[in-house]
Amino acid sequence: MEELKKTVINFRNERDWGKFHNAKDLAISLNLEAGELLENFQWKSSEEATETKNQEIKEEIADVMIYLLLLCDKLDINLEDAVHSKLKMNAQKYPIDKSFGKNAKYNEL
Amino acid sequence: MEELKKTVINFRNERDWGKFHNAKDLAISLNLEAGELLENFQWKSSEEATETKNQEIKEEIADVMIYLLLLCDKLDINLEDAVHSKLKMNAQKYPIDKSFGKNAKYNEL
Amino acid sequence: MEELKKTVINFRNERDWGKFHNAKDLAISLNLEAGELLENFQWKSSEEATETKNQEIKEEIADVMIYLLLLCDKLDINLEDAVHSKLKMNAQKYPIDKSFGKNAKYNEL
Amino acid sequence: MEELKKTVINFRNERDWGKFHNAKDLAISLNLEAGELLENFQWKSSEEATETKNQEIKEEIADVMIYLLLLCDKLDINLEDAVHSKLKMNAQKYPIDKSFGKNAKYNEL
Repeated sequence: MEELKKTVINFRNERDWGKFHNAKDLAISLNLEAGELLENFQWKSSEEATETKNQEIKEEIADVMIYLLLLCDKLDINLEDAVHSKLKMNAQKYPIDKSFGKNAKYNEL
Repeated sequence: MEELKKTVINFRNERDWGKFHNAKDLAISLNLEAGELLENFQWKSSEEATETKNQEIKEEIADVMIYLLLLCDKLDINLEDAVHSKLKMNAQKYPIDKSFGKNAKYNEL
Repeated sequence: MEELKKTVINFRNERDWGKFHNAKDLAISLNLEAGELLENFQWKSSEEATETKNQEIKEEIADVMIYLLLLCDKLDINLEDAVHSKLKMNAQKYPIDKSFGKNAKYNEL
Repeated sequence: MEELKKTVINFRNERDWGKFHNAKDLAISLNLEAGELLENFQWKSSEEATETKNQEIKEEIADVMIYLLLLCDKLDINLEDAVHSKLKMNAQKYPIDKSFGKNAKYNEL
Protein backbone atom coordinates (compact mmCIF):
# COMPACT_ATOMS: atom_id res chain seq x y z
CA MET A 1 0.00 0.00 0.00
CA GLU A 2 2.82 2.40 0.91
CA GLU A 3 4.42 1.81 -2.50
CA LEU A 4 1.12 2.48 -4.25
CA LYS A 5 0.56 5.65 -2.26
CA LYS A 6 4.03 6.89 -3.15
CA THR A 7 3.34 6.36 -6.85
CA VAL A 8 0.12 8.38 -6.61
CA ILE A 9 1.76 11.16 -4.60
CA ASN A 10 4.63 11.25 -7.05
CA PHE A 11 2.19 11.63 -9.96
CA ARG A 12 0.59 14.56 -8.14
CA ASN A 13 3.88 16.22 -7.24
CA GLU A 14 5.33 15.98 -10.73
CA ARG A 15 2.37 18.10 -11.88
CA ASP A 16 2.44 20.45 -8.88
CA TRP A 17 -1.22 19.67 -8.17
CA GLY A 18 -0.80 19.48 -4.41
CA LYS A 19 -1.56 23.18 -4.10
CA PHE A 20 -5.17 22.58 -5.30
CA HIS A 21 -5.75 19.64 -2.97
CA ASN A 22 -7.68 20.75 0.05
CA ALA A 23 -9.56 17.95 1.81
CA LYS A 24 -13.05 19.28 1.01
CA ASP A 25 -12.47 19.35 -2.75
CA LEU A 26 -10.79 15.95 -2.62
CA ALA A 27 -13.89 14.58 -0.86
CA ILE A 28 -16.00 16.13 -3.63
CA SER A 29 -13.76 14.52 -6.27
CA LEU A 30 -14.05 11.16 -4.58
CA ASN A 31 -17.85 11.52 -4.74
CA LEU A 32 -17.73 12.41 -8.42
CA GLU A 33 -15.56 9.39 -9.23
CA ALA A 34 -17.86 7.14 -7.20
CA GLY A 35 -20.72 8.55 -9.32
CA GLU A 36 -18.86 7.78 -12.55
CA LEU A 37 -18.39 4.23 -11.30
CA LEU A 38 -22.13 3.94 -10.61
CA GLU A 39 -22.96 5.38 -14.02
CA ASN A 40 -21.76 2.14 -15.58
CA PHE A 41 -24.57 0.29 -13.80
CA GLN A 42 -27.34 2.71 -14.82
CA TRP A 43 -30.30 1.11 -16.66
CA LYS A 44 -28.60 -2.27 -16.40
CA SER A 45 -28.71 -5.33 -14.20
CA SER A 46 -25.56 -5.96 -12.19
CA GLU A 47 -24.59 -8.87 -14.48
CA GLU A 48 -25.17 -6.92 -17.68
CA ALA A 49 -23.02 -4.02 -16.45
CA THR A 50 -20.26 -6.33 -15.27
CA GLU A 51 -20.10 -7.98 -18.68
CA THR A 52 -20.37 -4.96 -20.95
CA LYS A 53 -18.60 -2.31 -18.89
CA ASN A 54 -15.80 -4.30 -17.30
CA GLN A 55 -12.92 -2.05 -18.37
CA GLU A 56 -14.76 1.21 -17.55
CA ILE A 57 -15.66 -0.09 -14.09
CA LYS A 58 -12.04 -1.03 -13.42
CA GLU A 59 -10.87 2.46 -14.41
CA GLU A 60 -13.39 4.19 -12.16
CA ILE A 61 -12.51 1.93 -9.23
CA ALA A 62 -8.90 3.00 -9.76
CA ASP A 63 -9.94 6.67 -9.77
CA VAL A 64 -11.78 6.27 -6.46
CA MET A 65 -8.67 4.64 -4.98
CA ILE A 66 -6.42 7.41 -6.27
CA TYR A 67 -8.53 10.09 -4.56
CA LEU A 68 -8.72 7.99 -1.42
CA LEU A 69 -4.92 7.88 -1.26
CA LEU A 70 -4.61 11.61 -2.01
CA LEU A 71 -7.08 12.35 0.78
CA CYS A 72 -5.22 10.09 3.22
CA ASP A 73 -1.98 11.86 2.35
CA LYS A 74 -3.58 15.26 2.86
CA LEU A 75 -5.07 14.28 6.23
CA ASP A 76 -2.14 12.16 7.37
CA ILE A 77 -4.31 9.07 7.70
CA ASN A 78 -2.88 5.56 7.51
CA LEU A 79 -5.49 3.83 5.36
CA GLU A 80 -4.72 0.31 6.54
CA ASP A 81 -4.93 1.31 10.20
CA ALA A 82 -8.18 3.16 9.50
CA VAL A 83 -9.75 0.05 7.95
CA HIS A 84 -8.62 -2.18 10.82
CA SER A 85 -10.07 0.26 13.40
CA LYS A 86 -13.34 0.52 11.49
CA LEU A 87 -13.70 -3.25 11.18
CA LYS A 88 -13.34 -3.51 14.96
CA MET A 89 -16.13 -0.95 15.40
CA ASN A 90 -18.27 -2.77 12.83
CA ALA A 91 -17.69 -6.07 14.60
CA GLN A 92 -19.26 -4.59 17.73
CA LYS A 93 -22.20 -3.14 15.81
CA TYR A 94 -22.68 -6.36 13.88
CA PRO A 95 -21.91 -9.33 16.18
CA ILE A 96 -21.68 -12.54 14.13
CA ASP A 97 -24.49 -14.35 15.91
CA LYS A 98 -26.96 -11.47 15.48
CA SER A 99 -26.09 -10.44 11.94
CA PHE A 100 -25.37 -13.80 10.27
CA GLY A 101 -27.08 -13.91 6.90
CA LYS A 102 -29.07 -10.69 7.48
CA ASN A 103 -28.79 -7.41 5.57
CA ALA A 104 -30.50 -5.35 8.27
CA LYS A 105 -28.88 -2.22 9.69
CA TYR A 106 -27.37 -2.59 13.15
CA ASN A 107 -30.20 -0.61 14.74
CA GLU A 108 -32.74 -2.98 13.18
CA LEU A 109 -31.06 -6.24 14.20
CA MET B 1 -3.04 -4.78 0.40
CA GLU B 2 -3.70 -8.52 0.00
CA GLU B 3 -3.67 -8.94 3.78
CA LEU B 4 -6.13 -6.06 4.19
CA LYS B 5 -8.42 -7.48 1.54
CA LYS B 6 -8.41 -10.86 3.25
CA THR B 7 -9.41 -9.28 6.56
CA VAL B 8 -12.34 -7.50 4.88
CA ILE B 9 -13.45 -10.63 2.99
CA ASN B 10 -13.20 -12.65 6.17
CA PHE B 11 -15.42 -10.14 8.00
CA ARG B 12 -17.98 -10.50 5.21
CA ASN B 13 -17.82 -14.30 5.11
CA GLU B 14 -18.17 -14.73 8.87
CA ARG B 15 -21.53 -12.97 8.56
CA ASP B 16 -22.55 -14.73 5.33
CA TRP B 17 -23.08 -11.36 3.65
CA GLY B 18 -21.54 -12.36 0.33
CA LYS B 19 -24.94 -13.50 -0.93
CA PHE B 20 -26.22 -9.89 -0.87
CA HIS B 21 -23.18 -8.48 -2.63
CA ASN B 22 -23.91 -7.93 -6.29
CA ALA B 23 -21.67 -5.34 -7.96
CA LYS B 24 -24.45 -2.81 -8.60
CA ASP B 25 -25.49 -2.60 -4.96
CA LEU B 26 -21.85 -2.46 -3.86
CA ALA B 27 -21.33 0.48 -6.21
CA ILE B 28 -24.40 2.12 -4.65
CA SER B 29 -22.98 1.49 -1.16
CA LEU B 30 -19.66 2.99 -2.15
CA ASN B 31 -21.51 6.12 -3.30
CA LEU B 32 -23.43 6.33 -0.03
CA GLU B 33 -20.24 6.04 2.03
CA ALA B 34 -18.56 8.67 -0.16
CA GLY B 35 -21.58 10.86 0.60
CA GLU B 36 -21.22 10.28 4.35
CA LEU B 37 -17.60 11.30 4.04
CA LEU B 38 -18.58 14.51 2.26
CA GLU B 39 -21.26 15.22 4.86
CA ASN B 40 -18.49 16.03 7.34
CA PHE B 41 -17.45 18.96 5.16
CA GLN B 42 -20.95 20.40 4.72
CA TRP B 43 -21.34 24.07 5.78
CA LYS B 44 -17.68 24.15 6.77
CA SER B 45 -14.37 25.23 5.31
CA SER B 46 -11.95 22.42 4.60
CA GLU B 47 -9.80 23.40 7.59
CA GLU B 48 -12.73 23.64 9.98
CA ALA B 49 -13.99 20.18 8.95
CA THR B 50 -10.53 18.66 9.22
CA GLU B 51 -10.14 19.97 12.74
CA THR B 52 -13.58 19.24 14.17
CA LYS B 53 -14.52 16.06 12.31
CA ASN B 54 -11.19 14.27 12.15
CA GLN B 55 -12.32 10.95 13.61
CA GLU B 56 -15.58 10.84 11.60
CA ILE B 57 -13.69 11.54 8.37
CA LYS B 58 -11.25 8.73 9.12
CA GLU B 59 -14.09 6.29 9.71
CA GLU B 60 -15.85 7.20 6.47
CA ILE B 61 -12.62 6.90 4.50
CA ALA B 62 -12.29 3.41 5.94
CA ASP B 63 -15.87 2.58 4.88
CA VAL B 64 -15.17 3.69 1.32
CA MET B 65 -12.06 1.49 1.26
CA ILE B 66 -13.99 -1.49 2.64
CA TYR B 67 -16.56 -1.27 -0.16
CA LEU B 68 -13.81 -0.77 -2.71
CA LEU B 69 -12.17 -4.01 -1.60
CA LEU B 70 -15.49 -5.87 -1.56
CA LEU B 71 -16.22 -4.65 -5.08
CA CYS B 72 -12.74 -5.67 -6.28
CA ASP B 73 -13.27 -9.12 -4.79
CA LYS B 74 -16.66 -9.46 -6.45
CA LEU B 75 -15.32 -8.36 -9.87
CA ASP B 76 -11.96 -10.12 -9.54
CA ILE B 77 -10.06 -6.87 -9.93
CA ASN B 78 -6.54 -6.41 -8.59
CA LEU B 79 -6.77 -2.93 -7.10
CA GLU B 80 -3.05 -2.17 -7.25
CA ASP B 81 -2.81 -3.20 -10.89
CA ALA B 82 -5.91 -1.13 -11.67
CA VAL B 83 -4.36 1.99 -10.11
CA HIS B 84 -1.07 1.49 -11.96
CA SER B 85 -2.89 1.09 -15.31
CA LYS B 86 -5.03 4.16 -14.64
CA LEU B 87 -2.03 6.29 -13.72
CA LYS B 88 -0.46 5.35 -17.06
CA MET B 89 -3.60 6.46 -18.87
CA ASN B 90 -3.72 9.66 -16.82
CA ALA B 91 -0.07 10.38 -17.62
CA GLN B 92 -0.96 10.41 -21.32
CA LYS B 93 -4.01 12.63 -20.78
CA TYR B 94 -2.03 14.93 -18.51
CA PRO B 95 1.57 15.22 -19.78
CA ILE B 96 3.75 16.92 -17.18
CA ASP B 97 4.76 19.83 -19.38
CA LYS B 98 1.19 20.69 -20.34
CA SER B 99 -0.50 20.16 -17.00
CA PHE B 100 2.13 21.45 -14.57
CA GLY B 101 0.46 23.66 -11.97
CA LYS B 102 -2.91 23.73 -13.78
CA ASN B 103 -6.23 22.34 -12.56
CA ALA B 104 -7.84 22.31 -16.01
CA LYS B 105 -9.45 19.18 -17.44
CA TYR B 106 -7.38 17.33 -20.09
CA ASN B 107 -9.71 18.53 -22.85
CA GLU B 108 -9.16 22.14 -21.77
CA LEU B 109 -5.37 22.02 -21.53
CA MET C 1 -45.93 22.34 -11.56
CA GLU C 2 -48.51 20.05 -13.17
CA GLU C 3 -47.89 21.70 -16.55
CA LEU C 4 -44.13 21.22 -16.16
CA LYS C 5 -44.56 17.60 -15.18
CA LYS C 6 -46.75 16.98 -18.22
CA THR C 7 -44.08 18.45 -20.51
CA VAL C 8 -41.43 16.16 -19.02
CA ILE C 9 -43.67 13.06 -19.18
CA ASN C 10 -44.58 13.92 -22.76
CA PHE C 11 -40.87 14.14 -23.68
CA ARG C 12 -40.36 10.69 -22.17
CA ASN C 13 -43.41 9.14 -23.84
CA GLU C 14 -42.58 10.49 -27.29
CA ARG C 15 -39.33 8.49 -27.05
CA ASP C 16 -40.92 5.44 -25.43
CA TRP C 17 -38.44 5.66 -22.57
CA GLY C 18 -40.98 4.84 -19.86
CA LYS C 19 -40.17 1.14 -20.19
CA PHE C 20 -36.63 1.72 -18.85
CA HIS C 21 -37.78 3.83 -15.93
CA ASN C 22 -37.85 1.76 -12.77
CA ALA C 23 -37.60 3.79 -9.58
CA LYS C 24 -34.20 2.42 -8.54
CA ASP C 25 -32.49 3.44 -11.78
CA LEU C 26 -34.22 6.82 -11.72
CA ALA C 27 -32.86 7.37 -8.20
CA ILE C 28 -29.40 6.45 -9.53
CA SER C 29 -29.83 8.93 -12.41
CA LEU C 30 -30.86 11.65 -10.02
CA ASN C 31 -27.68 11.02 -8.04
CA LEU C 32 -25.55 11.18 -11.18
CA GLU C 33 -27.12 14.49 -12.23
CA ALA C 34 -26.62 15.87 -8.72
CA GLY C 35 -22.97 14.85 -9.09
CA GLU C 36 -22.68 16.64 -12.43
CA LEU C 37 -24.11 19.73 -10.76
CA LEU C 38 -21.50 19.50 -8.00
CA GLU C 39 -18.72 18.97 -10.53
CA ASN C 40 -19.08 22.62 -11.53
CA PHE C 41 -18.00 23.64 -8.03
CA GLN C 42 -14.95 21.35 -7.88
CA TRP C 43 -11.63 23.12 -7.11
CA LYS C 44 -13.45 26.47 -6.97
CA SER C 45 -14.91 28.75 -4.39
CA SER C 46 -18.68 29.09 -4.50
CA GLU C 47 -18.41 32.58 -6.00
CA GLU C 48 -15.91 31.55 -8.67
CA ALA C 49 -18.11 28.63 -9.76
CA THR C 50 -21.23 30.77 -9.81
CA GLU C 51 -19.55 33.30 -12.06
CA THR C 52 -17.74 31.02 -14.50
CA LYS C 53 -20.12 28.07 -14.68
CA ASN C 54 -23.49 29.77 -14.52
CA GLN C 55 -25.00 28.18 -17.62
CA GLU C 56 -23.69 24.68 -16.82
CA ILE C 57 -25.07 24.89 -13.29
CA LYS C 58 -28.48 25.93 -14.61
CA GLU C 59 -28.54 22.98 -17.01
CA GLU C 60 -27.64 20.48 -14.31
CA ILE C 61 -30.27 21.91 -11.95
CA ALA C 62 -32.78 21.35 -14.75
CA ASP C 63 -31.60 17.74 -15.16
CA VAL C 64 -32.06 17.06 -11.45
CA MET C 65 -35.59 18.49 -11.65
CA ILE C 66 -36.42 16.38 -14.71
CA TYR C 67 -35.45 13.16 -12.91
CA LEU C 68 -37.31 14.29 -9.82
CA LEU C 69 -40.48 14.70 -11.87
CA LEU C 70 -39.97 11.36 -13.64
CA LEU C 71 -39.51 9.66 -10.28
CA CYS C 72 -42.63 11.32 -8.86
CA ASP C 73 -44.60 10.15 -11.88
CA LYS C 74 -43.30 6.61 -11.51
CA LEU C 75 -44.12 6.48 -7.78
CA ASP C 76 -47.35 8.46 -8.02
CA ILE C 77 -46.06 11.13 -5.67
CA ASN C 78 -47.43 14.67 -5.67
CA LEU C 79 -44.23 16.68 -5.32
CA GLU C 80 -45.86 19.80 -3.89
CA ASP C 81 -47.72 17.81 -1.24
CA ALA C 82 -44.51 15.94 -0.41
CA VAL C 83 -42.62 19.20 0.16
CA HIS C 84 -45.40 20.65 2.33
CA SER C 85 -45.50 17.48 4.48
CA LYS C 86 -41.72 17.46 4.84
CA LEU C 87 -41.58 21.12 5.84
CA LYS C 88 -44.09 20.36 8.61
CA MET C 89 -41.85 17.55 9.85
CA ASN C 90 -38.79 19.79 9.62
CA ALA C 91 -40.59 22.52 11.56
CA GLN C 92 -40.99 20.10 14.46
CA LYS C 93 -37.36 18.95 14.29
CA TYR C 94 -36.15 22.55 13.97
CA PRO C 95 -38.37 24.82 16.11
CA ILE C 96 -37.67 28.47 15.29
CA ASP C 97 -36.59 29.44 18.80
CA LYS C 98 -34.07 26.59 19.08
CA SER C 99 -32.64 26.67 15.58
CA PHE C 100 -32.56 30.39 14.80
CA GLY C 101 -29.21 31.28 13.25
CA LYS C 102 -27.65 27.85 13.93
CA ASN C 103 -26.47 25.28 11.41
CA ALA C 104 -26.47 22.39 13.90
CA LYS C 105 -28.32 19.14 13.20
CA TYR C 106 -31.59 18.70 15.08
CA ASN C 107 -30.03 16.10 17.39
CA GLU C 108 -27.27 18.57 18.32
CA LEU C 109 -29.52 21.57 19.03
CA MET D 1 -44.12 26.51 -8.17
CA GLU D 2 -43.71 30.15 -7.07
CA GLU D 3 -45.95 29.50 -4.05
CA LEU D 4 -43.95 26.42 -3.13
CA LYS D 5 -40.66 28.29 -3.45
CA LYS D 6 -41.98 31.07 -1.21
CA THR D 7 -42.93 28.55 1.47
CA VAL D 8 -39.43 27.04 1.40
CA ILE D 9 -37.72 30.44 1.45
CA ASN D 10 -39.95 31.53 4.29
CA PHE D 11 -38.98 28.43 6.29
CA ARG D 12 -35.32 29.31 5.74
CA ASN D 13 -35.73 32.98 6.61
CA GLU D 14 -37.67 32.33 9.83
CA ARG D 15 -34.59 30.42 11.04
CA ASP D 16 -32.05 32.92 9.64
CA TRP D 17 -30.35 30.10 7.73
CA GLY D 18 -29.76 32.12 4.57
CA LYS D 19 -26.39 33.26 5.86
CA PHE D 20 -25.05 29.67 5.65
CA HIS D 21 -26.38 29.08 2.15
CA ASN D 22 -23.63 29.49 -0.38
CA ALA D 23 -24.23 27.68 -3.67
CA LYS D 24 -21.38 25.19 -3.26
CA ASP D 25 -22.62 23.88 0.09
CA LEU D 26 -26.20 23.79 -1.20
CA ALA D 27 -25.00 21.65 -4.13
CA ILE D 28 -23.27 19.37 -1.61
CA SER D 29 -26.49 19.16 0.43
CA LEU D 30 -28.48 18.30 -2.67
CA ASN D 31 -26.03 15.44 -3.34
CA LEU D 32 -26.34 14.17 0.22
CA GLU D 33 -30.14 14.17 0.03
CA ALA D 34 -30.01 12.40 -3.34
CA GLY D 35 -27.80 9.82 -1.61
CA GLU D 36 -30.31 9.37 1.22
CA LEU D 37 -33.00 8.81 -1.40
CA LEU D 38 -30.87 6.14 -3.07
CA GLU D 39 -30.12 4.50 0.28
CA ASN D 40 -33.73 3.30 0.37
CA PHE D 41 -33.06 1.18 -2.73
CA GLN D 42 -29.84 -0.39 -1.42
CA TRP D 43 -29.80 -4.23 -1.40
CA LYS D 44 -33.35 -4.24 -2.77
CA SER D 45 -35.08 -4.59 -6.11
CA SER D 46 -36.88 -1.50 -7.29
CA GLU D 47 -40.26 -3.06 -6.50
CA GLU D 48 -39.26 -4.19 -3.03
CA ALA D 49 -37.96 -0.72 -2.15
CA THR D 50 -41.05 0.99 -3.53
CA GLU D 51 -43.29 -1.20 -1.39
CA THR D 52 -41.39 -1.22 1.89
CA LYS D 53 -39.85 2.26 1.87
CA ASN D 54 -42.61 4.32 0.30
CA GLN D 55 -42.82 6.97 3.00
CA GLU D 56 -39.03 7.34 3.38
CA ILE D 57 -38.63 7.73 -0.39
CA LYS D 58 -41.29 10.44 -0.46
CA GLU D 59 -39.55 12.35 2.32
CA GLU D 60 -36.17 12.22 0.60
CA ILE D 61 -37.68 13.34 -2.71
CA ALA D 62 -39.08 16.32 -0.83
CA ASP D 63 -35.66 17.07 0.66
CA VAL D 64 -34.06 17.07 -2.79
CA MET D 65 -36.75 19.46 -4.02
CA ILE D 66 -36.25 21.77 -1.04
CA TYR D 67 -32.53 22.09 -1.76
CA LEU D 68 -33.23 22.55 -5.44
CA LEU D 69 -35.49 25.50 -4.64
CA LEU D 70 -32.98 26.97 -2.18
CA LEU D 71 -30.27 26.72 -4.81
CA CYS D 72 -32.48 28.34 -7.45
CA ASP D 73 -33.23 31.18 -5.05
CA LYS D 74 -29.53 31.65 -4.27
CA LEU D 75 -28.56 31.68 -7.96
CA ASP D 76 -31.61 33.56 -9.16
CA ILE D 77 -32.64 30.74 -11.47
CA ASN D 78 -36.22 30.25 -12.61
CA LEU D 79 -36.59 26.48 -12.29
CA GLU D 80 -39.44 26.14 -14.76
CA ASP D 81 -37.62 28.15 -17.41
CA ALA D 82 -34.47 26.10 -16.80
CA VAL D 83 -36.35 22.83 -17.35
CA HIS D 84 -38.00 24.10 -20.53
CA SER D 85 -34.62 25.25 -21.93
CA LYS D 86 -32.98 21.95 -21.04
CA LEU D 87 -35.75 19.91 -22.66
CA LYS D 88 -35.22 21.87 -25.87
CA MET D 89 -31.50 21.03 -25.74
CA ASN D 90 -32.28 17.39 -24.99
CA ALA D 91 -34.73 17.27 -27.90
CA GLN D 92 -31.86 18.17 -30.22
CA LYS D 93 -29.50 15.62 -28.68
CA TYR D 94 -32.21 12.97 -28.71
CA PRO D 95 -34.36 13.38 -31.84
CA ILE D 96 -37.49 11.23 -31.58
CA ASP D 97 -36.77 9.14 -34.67
CA LYS D 98 -33.23 8.25 -33.56
CA SER D 99 -33.85 7.69 -29.85
CA PHE D 100 -37.27 6.01 -29.88
CA GLY D 101 -37.23 3.04 -27.54
CA LYS D 102 -33.45 3.17 -26.98
CA ASN D 103 -31.58 3.86 -23.74
CA ALA D 104 -28.29 4.71 -25.46
CA LYS D 105 -26.45 7.96 -24.76
CA TYR D 106 -26.73 10.60 -27.47
CA ASN D 107 -23.13 10.02 -28.58
CA GLU D 108 -23.89 6.31 -29.06
CA LEU D 109 -27.12 6.71 -31.04
